[in-house]
Order: sequence, then C-alpha cells, then structure tokens
Amino acid sequence: MKIEQCSFRYEDKFSLLNGESIEGFELVYETYGELNAEKNNAVLVCHAFSGSHHAAGVDPTTDKPGWWHEFIGPGKAIDTDKYFVVSPNNLGSCYGSTGPLTVNNVTGKPYGSSFPALDVYDWVASQDLLRENLGVKAWEMVLGGSLGGMQALEWSISFSGKIKKAGIIAATALVSSQNIALNQVAREIIRKDIAFENGDYLLANKKPKDGLKVARMLGHITYLSETNFKNRFGRKLQDAENKIDENIDFEVENYLRYQGEKFSEYFDANSYILLTKVMDTFNPAARFNNNIVEALKNCIAKLLILSFDDDWLFPTQYSKELHLAAIKAGVHSSFIELSGQHGHDSFLFTSDDYTSAISNFLNHA
Amino acid sequence: MKIEQCSFRYEDKFSLLNGESIEGFELVYETYGELNAEKNNAVLVCHAFSGSHHAAGVDPTTDKPGWWHEFIGPGKAIDTDKYFVVSPNNLGSCYGSTGPLTVNNVTGKPYGSSFPALDVYDWVASQDLLRENLGVKAWEMVLGGSLGGMQALEWSISFSGKIKKAGIIAATALVSSQNIALNQVAREIIRKDIAFENGDYLLANKKPKDGLKVARMLGHITYLSETNFKNRFGRKLQDAENKIDENIDFEVENYLRYQGEKFSEYFDANSYILLTKVMDTFNPAARFNNNIVEALKNCIAKLLILSFDDDWLFPTQYSKELHLAAIKAGVHSSFIELSGQHGHDSFLFTSDDYTSAISNFLNHA
Repeated sequence: MKIEQCSFRYEDKFSLLNGESIEGFELVYETYGELNAEKNNAVLVCHAFSGSHHAAGVDPTTDKPGWWHEFIGPGKAIDTDKYFVVSPNNLGSCYGSTGPLTVNNVTGKPYGSSFPALDVYDWVASQDLLRENLGVKAWEMVLGGSLGGMQALEWSISFSGKIKKAGIIAATALVSSQNIALNQVAREIIRKDIAFENGDYLLANKKPKDGLKVARMLGHITYLSETNFKNRFGRKLQDAENKIDENIDFEVENYLRYQGEKFSEYFDANSYILLTKVMDTFNPAARFNNNIVEALKNCIAKLLILSFDDDWLFPTQYSKELHLAAIKAGVHSSFIELSGQHGHDSFLFTSDDYTSAISNFLNHA
Repeated sequence: MKIEQCSFRYEDKFSLLNGESIEGFELVYETYGELNAEKNNAVLVCHAFSGSHHAAGVDPTTDKPGWWHEFIGPGKAIDTDKYFVVSPNNLGSCYGSTGPLTVNNVTGKPYGSSFPALDVYDWVASQDLLRENLGVKAWEMVLGGSLGGMQALEWSISFSGKIKKAGIIAATALVSSQNIALNQVAREIIRKDIAFENGDYLLANKKPKDGLKVARMLGHITYLSETNFKNRFGRKLQDAENKIDENIDFEVENYLRYQGEKFSEYFDANSYILLTKVMDTFNPAARFNNNIVEALKNCIAKLLILSFDDDWLFPTQYSKELHLAAIKAGVHSSFIELSGQHGHDSFLFTSDDYTSAISNFLNHA
C-alpha cells in the first residue's frame, strides 16, 4: 500500500462559522493507495476526538499502527487497491495541523487558549479546500466514528454534491445533556490544574499534565462500557509489583492511571478543551431552525448510519432518530446496529459484520 | 414528631475489620418518634455516601429538611407514631461522628488522611454498639439506599438476630469495575488539587475546594440519569445573567458547577476519599469465600430488595442477582423494581409505589 504523509497549506484568511477567522491554516494528512486518473476514487476518513491523521499503516516515527489500520488497506473494508484514502488531522487538534500549539503570525506567540472556538462545519470547510486542492470533484465516501461520524453528517448536509456517500458511525446529530455534563467535568479538571495558567501554560513553559491525565481517565471510562470493564477487569486486585502507587487496590484503577499518564505525555490541554466544546456545540440543524429533517433535505448523498449495542455515550437510539429524520427528508438512508464489545470505542475494533457493513455500502450502495 | 439530636460515645478500643483500631469513637445521631416500653419498635435508617444523620424533620441550624423527610414522620412510610427511628452519622464521615476531621487523642492532631480505612462492617459494628446502648434487642428494620442499603445487607449477614427486616434499596453486594473506575477518578481529582497537601491540608490550614467541587460534579452526573438530564436541561443555553463564568454555554454546566461549589463548602476531602473506598471495597461475602449465597445463609431477617429502572450506577440487574442469591440461601426475600425519574438518586424521592413498598414491608411482611 502506498502511504504518503502530506501537508496542505491554505494561505488566505479562513472565516469560521462563528464570525471569527484565522490567517490561513495548515492541514497535515496521510493518504493510502493512489488517486486514479478520473479522480473519482477518493475516500475521506475523519478522526474522532483525540485521533490523528495517522489512520492506517505503521507510523515510521512511533512504529504504531493507525487507529483504523484494520479497516484501510489492500483487501480490507476500505480497499486501497481500489480507493484513495485521505485522512487529515483536524484544525484545533495537536498533531501538526493548525491549532492551539501553532504560533499565531499576528502575535508571534502560540495561539494557546486564544485559538478561536471551532464548529464541525469549520473542519468540513477546511477539508473541502483540501478536496479542491487534490482535484477531487466529490468524495466517493466520507466516514468516521464518533466526532468523525459527525463530520460525515455535516458533509452530507452542508457540502451536498461534494460527497456521494457518508458513513456516520457511533455518532449523533446532537450530543446529550449528560455528555455535555461529562465533557464539562473534564474541562474543569484541566482548568483546575495549577500548571494550566488560565490556558497560557506554553508561555509559562509548563504543562498541565495532571489535569490532562485525570480528564482522560474519565473520558476512557465513558468510551468503554460496564460489560467491557467487567470482562477485562472485574474486581481483580492489582498485584503489588506493578502498582503505580499505594492508593491503588484494583487492576482497573492501575490501568486507567497508566493510560491517563501516557495520554498526558502527548496531548495538548487547550486542544482537549477546544475539541470537547466542538462536540458539545455540534448542531448541523442550527441553520435550519434546529430542524434536522429540514437540514437533511439538503443531503443528496447516501447515508450509512451505524451504531453499537453497548455504546452508552452515543446509544443506538440517537442513530435511529437520525435515520428516521433522514427517511423523512427523503434521503437514501441505511441503518444497522451491530454487536460491540468495547462500548463507544467499538467503532475502532474490527469484526466481520462491521467490515461487511462498510465495504458493502462503499462498493454496492 | 419528637426529634432528638444525640451522641453516643464508645470509650474502649474499637477494632476494625482490617486489623487496625481506633481509641474509641463518637457517633452523632438523630431520633424520630419514641422508643416504646418493650423497646421493640426501633428502626435504623442508614445514610448514603455523602448523607448525614439528619434524615427527617427540619434541622434547626440550617433550616433544611432531612434527606428522607418525606418517608419518616407521622403517617408516613416509616410512621413515627408507631416506630422509633434512629439515624446515625457514619464513622469516617464529616458531620460530627469520628472521622478524618476528629482530633486523634494519641497525636493531638486531626486524623486527616491517617484515619484508617473502613469497611461497611465497621459501620455496622459501631451501630450495633449504639443498638446495645439504646437497650434495643433487635431492630424492627434496618434500611437505606445506595451505600445505606449496603449497610442493611451487612446487618442481615453479620448481625443476624439483631435485625428482623432489611430494606436494601438501590444497592448491591459488590460495586462494578466501572463504579470503581469512576470513584478512582473522583479521588484523583481531589488528590491533584494543589491544596490537598497529600491529605494534610488541615495542618496547612488549607482546603482542596476545587478538587472536591469537580469530584462532586462527576458524582452528581452518575447519581442522575440521561433521561433526567434530558428532561431537566436538554441542550438549553445558560442565560448570560446567571452564568457562573464565561466558559459556560449550557444550563447543565452552570447547574453542576453551582452544585459542586456548594458541596465543596461543607464536605471534607479526606472523607470523600475514604467513603468512596468503603464503597469500592464492600464485599460482605469476603469472609465466606466470596460466595454471597453462603454469606446469606447467616441471614434470618426478611429482605426487601428494591431497585429503580433508570438507575445506571446500581442497575436493577444487581438487585435481581442479590435477590436470587437470597432465595438460594433460603432467605425470605422480596424484590421489586420501581419506576424512577432521578437515576440512582431515585431512592431519595417519594412516590406512591415507593412508600407503599416500604410501609407494606415494614408493617406486614
């Protein structure tokens, strides 16, 4: 499989949905497979909250496989012998695309907490400029899980004609009050870290690692499920030898502490806050009197709406409601609920049913 | 209704289940109604995690009704014209009974984080000394919700003969891996507060209020339910006038922040950590090879096991499993699932069905 690590630089002023703007931006992205001569085999893959553009293959610097490497490759669900897959890192994230870590040319300092609030629409608009730059008339499919699925939904509503199919996986048109509450707790955990310095920790040469770590621990719980925790950890006690600290009794505590610690090494706190806000405020029907059916009347793409039975963060009910709205709007929409074993994170794990659902839709819908 | 605010002081060494001990203790408690001459009308009410002994009536100092005031009183589910209700504050808590805020006579300093780890068994053992002191041969009933229900279960197993009936409400014989994970996040939030000082904040004349506040926000989410959040807040935006700070968009954020703030004024951080650990490590079957059926073979009390359909913290499944174990052990056990509208917190809110279930069992089982 041909893999390329690329960068797209947009030099003009880029207006955001909220009326603010940034002076140009950079999107880093990876591509898998080759764009054909007709340029009609391009698939856009959108990452979730803390994901990156590294979706497939093995990263040469970290030696790690991409977050969807089981789905993207020769003979896989998204067959790179046939399709050219584009995977960008989103604006506001911290893996190379323009975001809080980027130096603002106007001030000469990193944006930090002054990076403007983004909407999923802004991500999609920046991806549309990348599409144009690649010479692709329309994506064969745009797909992703969680916040990635929300981008696919936004594409199908707001960039009608530039996308033929959308895969909206473990996602929703509106996150719930409970999700907002959980995200707000994560933000508060980070903001209360003494090293956060009101978001200006970069200037102070600090990093609110403790806050990031504990926020991630909370996130991690919500991405899995009670069944998953029960099967993996149950109430097993942590052996003394591998205990991270003396306050720990159970394996599940040690695991979460370890995962949170790792995450806090590489993620950025301002990005964490910004990206959770993007999720909370996502509302593709906002410009249509909050009527999702009216919004979906703009959609001419075919939709695959997919959920997992043990996802309690974005439960199946949300997907059903979205499917029903699409049907009412006259959209070609297909819905399937699959059995998952990893809660909300099930969208990251392959299964025969899951890969069949994606490849069948991509190739035959 | 006759209300008395009392204190029971135990002067001897009090051995704990884990082998440690404390040099005596004090239990503050309230009583409602009057103990009859035969001393056979006493009901013990056990509070949940952050509750206190103030279960009924109106507290003269704060002017607030008790946490179960709708259930306890003349003509109510627990009729104080008939029953004498005893409601203690648990060891390790922060409302007057011996706990981390208490001065350790040996060192002359507050226990703080050095207060020994407790087991639900220790609470029940201390309550049993109170029972003896009151001259009550056996409680007519011991009941409570959540961690209060766990005490009722422990009573029925470990103090057989001293209790005739137990009401185990929204509780479980073993909390789940997911609950442990959530409690551990709360503990980490508190420990990472710069004012926590490794638990010695009292000596430093500090209070880790931010940590307590955010931990409570997380707890609050788990005590409610998605449906409850949806009905109360949905995605309503917070009006500018009442915004606690500029980072807030949604009403639900403001609400949680406000509730967390209030809680952090009066609760103690070391108690928070200690009490969540009591919950996590609760296992009344530990002394019976982790076999809850074997443990329940000691129970001669009649059990009422009650759950709520929208409780996701201690879901109905747990109560069903406990009921089945009781049946296998030959215990007289009655199970009912009620409709709740407040998630796990449903046990605090009255309804005709709920009060009927309790009063019927108390008077006629």
